[in-house]
Amino acid sequence: MISVQTFSLMLLAGGLLMAAPVQAEEASANTTQRISPVDTRPSLVVNKSAFKQYFSGGEVRIDFLYPATDDNMQSAAYVTFEPGARTHWHTHPAGQHMIVTSGVGYTQTWKGERRTLRVGDVVWCPVGVKHWHGASEKIAMTHLVITGSDKNGKNVEWLEPVTDEQYAGK
Amino acid sequence: MISVQTFSLMLLAGGLLMAAPVQAEEASANTTQRISPVDTRPSLVVNKSAFKQYFSGGEVRIDFLYPATDDNMQSAAYVTFEPGARTHWHTHPAGQHMIVTSGVGYTQTWKGERRTLRVGDVVWCPVGVKHWHGASEKIAMTHLVITGSDKNGKNVEWLEPVTDEQYAGK
Repeated sequence: MISVQTFSLMLLAGGLLMAAPVQAEEASANTTQRISPVDTRPSLVVNKSAFKQYFSGGEVRIDFLYPATDDNMQSAAYVTFEPGARTHWHTHPAGQHMIVTSGVGYTQTWKGERRTLRVGDVVWCPVGVKHWHGASEKIAMTHLVITGSDKNGKNVEWLEPVTDEQYAGK
Repeated sequence: MISVQTFSLMLLAGGLLMAAPVQAEEASANTTQRISPVDTRPSLVVNKSAFKQYFSGGEVRIDFLYPATDDNMQSAAYVTFEPGARTHWHTHPAGQHMIVTSGVGYTQTWKGERRTLRVGDVVWCPVGVKHWHGASEKIAMTHLVITGSDKNGKNVEWLEPVTDEQYAGK
């Protein structure tokens, strides 16, 4: 089972949703399923954490689902943005899928147009594409993100903040 | 963007949630994000399809999210089981994550105990572990499944049906 400690290690590793190496006790458990009950994974309130430096415009919450491991180099989490909240510009070294599960949000690639996201929309962000995502101005947005990790366990490269003009789609 | 045709190809390939090879027109689109709006992906009602042979006990619906591609060898879908509905026994050649998003369900590994799944619970099924999953007797269950594909594009090996005794946890 994935422990709270595993998720803590992911955070201490210094990158949002970093891959954690598979733990020794898990390696021997591959003959059965691993169940992670919902009440074993505390929410991360971003503005109370070291990750607030990578977001702006409002509170963001991360609800971890599973970390990357040696036998599955992808991690997953729900990420919830309050109205106006957004990521900084960033890229993913191994790509990311986003599945909108609640509300209305935006995403934009560098030099591209701001796009509106609604529940059930799915976004694939290929390797190295500079982009941001977040909630709309008045409606919160939750998406489930599934993020690949590269060979070094890295899954995001943070860049500059999204300005209010960029957020407004101007 | 992932087209309806892509999902149809996945189905015609003969296996549930089979990997589809990345299409030529997508290969050149890696400089931006690919957005798949919710209203471009028809639901698959299993009992009206060729897949009904792999399920029993009630209706099952599959709402595809994204297919496996050359640059991301995992596919994702919501799978919804009516009360009593369940998969056959099966294994995954490249593993599968399940995230329960609605209702109450069950899962069981071969010779293991039946386990109850609730909203927010996450299950990792390692490569080759024989198991089944489905709804509970009186409450439907939806989970989001993220399924790896092996080098041949295969992501599931179907086995025998789950008997009523097995389903009852006896």
